[in-house]
Amino acid sequence: MGKARPRLSKKTYQARASRLREQLVQLQVELKHVPFKVLLILAGPEGAGRGNLLNTLAEWLDPRGVETFSYHAPTENEQAHPPQWRFWRSLPAIGRIGLYAGSWYTETLREEARGKRALSHVAGEAERIRDFEQLLADGGTLIIKVWLQLSKDAQGRRLRTLRAEPATAWRVTEEDWHHHRIYDRLAKTARLIRAKTDRPGARWHLIDAEDERARDLAVGQLLLTQFRQQRKKMARLPRPAAPRRVKPLRPSGLRRLQALPLDQDLSEKDYDALREKWLGRLSRAVRDALAAGRSIVFAFEGWDAAGKGGAIRRLTSAIDPRDYSVVSVAKPTDEEKHAHYLWRFWRDIPRHGRMTVFDRSWYGRVLVERLEGFCREDEWRRAFAEINAFERELTDHGTIVLKYWLHVSHAEQLRRFREREATAHKRHKMNAEDWRNRRKRAAYEIAVGDMLALTDKENAPWHLVPADNKRYARLEVLRSAARQITAALEE
Amino acid sequence: MGKARPRLSKKTYQARASRLREQLVQLQVELKHVPFKVLLILAGPEGAGRGNLLNTLAEWLDPRGVETFSYHAPTENEQAHPPQWRFWRSLPAIGRIGLYAGSWYTETLREEARGKRALSHVAGEAERIRDFEQLLADGGTLIIKVWLQLSKDAQGRRLRTLRAEPATAWRVTEEDWHHHRIYDRLAKTARLIRAKTDRPGARWHLIDAEDERARDLAVGQLLLTQFRQQRKKMARLPRPAAPRRVKPLRPSGLRRLQALPLDQDLSEKDYDALREKWLGRLSRAVRDALAAGRSIVFAFEGWDAAGKGGAIRRLTSAIDPRDYSVVSVAKPTDEEKHAHYLWRFWRDIPRHGRMTVFDRSWYGRVLVERLEGFCREDEWRRAFAEINAFERELTDHGTIVLKYWLHVSHAEQLRRFREREATAHKRHKMNAEDWRNRRKRAAYEIAVGDMLALTDKENAPWHLVPADNKRYARLEVLRSAARQITAALEE
Repeated sequence: MGKARPRLSKKTYQARASRLREQLVQLQVELKHVPFKVLLILAGPEGAGRGNLLNTLAEWLDPRGVETFSYHAPTENEQAHPPQWRFWRSLPAIGRIGLYAGSWYTETLREEARGKRALSHVAGEAERIRDFEQLLADGGTLIIKVWLQLSKDAQGRRLRTLRAEPATAWRVTEEDWHHHRIYDRLAKTARLIRAKTDRPGARWHLIDAEDERARDLAVGQLLLTQFRQQRKKMARLPRPAAPRRVKPLRPSGLRRLQALPLDQDLSEKDYDALREKWLGRLSRAVRDALAAGRSIVFAFEGWDAAGKGGAIRRLTSAIDPRDYSVVSVAKPTDEEKHAHYLWRFWRDIPRHGRMTVFDRSWYGRVLVERLEGFCREDEWRRAFAEINAFERELTDHGTIVLKYWLHVSHAEQLRRFREREATAHKRHKMNAEDWRNRRKRAAYEIAVGDMLALTDKENAPWHLVPADNKRYARLEVLRSAARQITAALEE
Repeated sequence: MGKARPRLSKKTYQARASRLREQLVQLQVELKHVPFKVLLILAGPEGAGRGNLLNTLAEWLDPRGVETFSYHAPTENEQAHPPQWRFWRSLPAIGRIGLYAGSWYTETLREEARGKRALSHVAGEAERIRDFEQLLADGGTLIIKVWLQLSKDAQGRRLRTLRAEPATAWRVTEEDWHHHRIYDRLAKTARLIRAKTDRPGARWHLIDAEDERARDLAVGQLLLTQFRQQRKKMARLPRPAAPRRVKPLRPSGLRRLQALPLDQDLSEKDYDALREKWLGRLSRAVRDALAAGRSIVFAFEGWDAAGKGGAIRRLTSAIDPRDYSVVSVAKPTDEEKHAHYLWRFWRDIPRHGRMTVFDRSWYGRVLVERLEGFCREDEWRRAFAEINAFERELTDHGTIVLKYWLHVSHAEQLRRFREREATAHKRHKMNAEDWRNRRKRAAYEIAVGDMLALTDKENAPWHLVPADNKRYARLEVLRSAARQITAALEE
């Protein structure tokens, strides 16, 4: 690699390019009908021609199916979110190809070159990137990573040629020359990053960039080959199906759920007094947290009619409306259905100083999607670890994550369903699905148990709230939220 | 107004609220099936209870059909875009209700209170708001604006009560007391803004906020009444239809188009030299503009096969890939179809220091949408002024707007269509629609003529490019772009 090969003749190039274009465009037509995204990431030293290659690919492909991405240093708004946030926001739509001239690798490499980062930090960053790509690849995204190889000598020649032409001289910056001088150190860092991030589903491909024509053809050919492999792989995947029998992965969670006492009593008078006390504490804790630049994420889950809506309204009544938003998680839209299941939640993650309350959440993956067969078994099994990693990403960034399961007995739920059906302004809350879910209570209890057992972490704990008594449940939400937020600030 | 009425009894309130909830939920069900958005804007002095009212409405309505919005001071990223940009980004989806506790009025009023703005500036802001609302209302959005009335005395009482309760004391800020002291001045400013922005389709409704219960019922009732009126109004609108005969609004544009000479000649050698020269100038001009914090918007229009793609690729080959993006405007998605036609373009407007190239643009409204009957006649007629206002908003913000019409003769187009059909990797570019559009050339020429005559403005001029000779056309794009951008920097 890196050794100059004889230059490909213009005639040979044009013949091959013409055939390749035809196949690539055909690929794009097919891609519209298969449910995956393609990410083509171009990386390599300055002068390797990422920009030109991007232009060639844009010329070969039908531009209506292509999105190009590159990243500047993060904006203030991006910095106010966890690092992954901006990459989640700029993924191509389903059936489209994303061309990345810059990527999650760019800043990491650039910062190292500036000598701002220790090598151990770079290794840590690479591990985060690896996990992020793993998540996307597991979700069916095709990730093709191209490292354009260019020797130090060839880089020097390329930079000098660019500098000599008036139309391209501006492209060569002082930073480029600096990178040229420290070529060997950068190459070593890049090797380290590539080694850490070269994993099934997100492989690095080394392409010789010295001969521009051969380089372009090689990348085009790689795109074709990878696409065909991925299509085969996707076709072999089993269709998702609802499980015949639901068995717990970790029975301890189910036991914890079933052991929860539900016979709490609380008079209206006591409730009123305690509510005021805890509302006050909560509102103070939230204000302190937001003022300190923290952000807060609430995830509310619970049985139908367990009182999630009421609990959320009590909670938010203590917060400045400009500081929070409530996100009701309904059935996914078409766009959401074709995206990674975490995508729509990333979209609504609050920035520093803000709070988001999710009325139902990413836990749908291990509840309704597990039990109704909306995803494959390997998908929901993997989701426990993915969700833990997602919440870890949030809390590492300073977000306070609070999770609630509102628990009502089977009997109390029946009473509330009947009451809803009898009350005109509550009738819209009921539908056939609620009754159907109710009949599956035993299966759902197992799924909830597994969720509690596998995702109750110190950085993002579950609050299991007895909710047969609405007043008690609402108070318990306020009290535990005030305590968790206060404790998080004292750490 | 402003005079305290006897307090509504709890019993009467509950009976009325219960009936209202039922109707509101019914409204939401209907809203899912009618193609409009609802914006409910709550404004008024501190203590009038916007937050509580928002909570009540959120309790009454089905939360899955509601989005709440409020605005902080603009972020750095929002400031890097034209002022309207952030409001365009936060409109509710079709069939949903947006509740605005803060709105485009909030900052205007708050800044005036801080004494930062002259009253004439406030009047100017109000006019911008009026035009923005007019645009949305014309597009079928129902805008309900509620001004909560509260006397100075009542405000003082309300603030003191809030301050006395531990759970609400934090809500009363020093700024609130300041606003209380300058109550009369603020009321006068608010009256001025209301008067300027009280227009058909976006009326102000004054609601007495002294009695909280009556206030909530009145706003709920208003939402119902307005919704029903809007539904009737929408039902009466004619269906869009393709025009039987196309007549020019301004024949001068058509004459200009038809008078354009198309017989340019340019040898490959001359082209190569001139291209290098103008690419260099253009790349310098763009860099200078972006470095100076300006942004650049290109809109490319032209006949099918006029060479837009090629011209765009030549143009962007001179620009750092991290500084620009190319947006190919295809048929609108479902989401886009239900939004205002300008919405998807606002989404892609570049921030300071960036450039966006639109391959087809908002001019589709007065071209394909006019001729194919995708919108009503009143809609495309109004679009000329709306587009001028849109571009004015951009250039007022410092954006450089360049518009290109690539003009090929009917004969040259035929030659290119046949060539495309004969070339494997170009075949995907052709479809039945291209041939159909070609047959409608005469009608399209009239529409293009009107577009040129009615939207060729000094701040956003049209470049009419002869494109039978591809080399000449590409060069002409580079040259005129370099000149316009250089001139814009010298102003």
